[in-house]
Amino acid sequence: MSSPEPVAPPLRRRGERMRRAVLAAAVDLLSSQGLAGATVGAVARAAGVHETSVYRRWGTRENLILDALTTELDAALPVPDTGRVRDDLLAFFSALARLLVTAQGRALLRLSVEQDDTLEDRRGPYWSERLDRAVLMVRRGVERGELAADTDPGLLIEAVSGPLFVRVLLSGAPLDEVLVRGLVDLALDGARPR
Amino acid sequence: MSSPEPVAPPLRRRGERMRRAVLAAAVDLLSSQGLAGATVGAVARAAGVHETSVYRRWGTRENLILDALTTELDAALPVPDTGRVRDDLLAFFSALARLLVTAQGRALLRLSVEQDDTLEDRRGPYWSERLDRAVLMVRRGVERGELAADTDPGLLIEAVSGPLFVRVLLSGAPLDEVLVRGLVDLALDGARPR
Repeated sequence: MSSPEPVAPPLRRRGERMRRAVLAAAVDLLSSQGLAGATVGAVARAAGVHETSVYRRWGTRENLILDALTTELDAALPVPDTGRVRDDLLAFFSALARLLVTAQGRALLRLSVEQDDTLEDRRGPYWSERLDRAVLMVRRGVERGELAADTDPGLLIEAVSGPLFVRVLLSGAPLDEVLVRGLVDLALDGARPR
Repeated sequence: MSSPEPVAPPLRRRGERMRRAVLAAAVDLLSSQGLAGATVGAVARAAGVHETSVYRRWGTRENLILDALTTELDAALPVPDTGRVRDDLLAFFSALARLLVTAQGRALLRLSVEQDDTLEDRRGPYWSERLDRAVLMVRRGVERGELAADTDPGLLIEAVSGPLFVRVLLSGAPLDEVLVRGLVDLALDGARPR
């Protein structure tokens, strides 16, 4: 821990450290103050860097915000590979549920449905792209013969994730392990008697 | 058609006609201009009635808006009873999908996730209450033995409706009959081989 890290040249390391500080500040501001509060100036101040450095690296406020959201979510939502489709789905969607009930996750989701012309084009597919990574778990389940060959992987992911998003955005009902398990088992086994 | 209707006294009839005109104007304004545009004054003008009449009947703008949404949606979303759970679910969720892709339905849903302190308390459960009526279809399926006895009716309704809401609010992906059928069959049969 106390030994020097000789791998990256100092300038490069400083660049990456600056990037992480700026993205963390952006996520904090988005979470606490919403889209309107996450100006380039405010993010730069919170991260302790020059505003011009932010513009030099990201070009636009839009790019900065999307980079912050993407980095945050991809780190919080790894796609597991346990060898069993049910365990994979439970792990993935439990992590999604835990993310969505944090103040930060709630803010990120709310941000995604806010009307804002400056982000119009790229926010639409944002969550879809995150969830697209999850279809891998279903495909592996099909390959192992755990799921029917004609399973639609994207549809299964939507059927489990949809209610989680809706509870945060619309109903305000709680997100917990019981809910996630119920949704995963319904998507796997169906409601008809087996 | 041309004969007089002797049933309701004239004053009562006028009251109901006034109510329908005001609610229709409210839905039109909500759809075209969002929550901010649906002021009591604007609704009254569009319906051709006095603003004081609107306040006398509904008391607050909040009550007017919720009455308009409830009346609109309940009429557009009857709960079918065909004797077969799959047919009931297909009919109900196809109607929901058709409603959600109209400009009006899209506006109603977007309205529900808008941040607005004046409606905070009662909008949350609004869609949940609409969907609560749908659990009847699942309960009847359980009683007929079409579904497993331990089926959670509310969870099944959430699993089918969730992706429809999310497509409108987040992904922008299309809502069609193929999607509805896929979601209903997944919830009934599951993805595991049968």
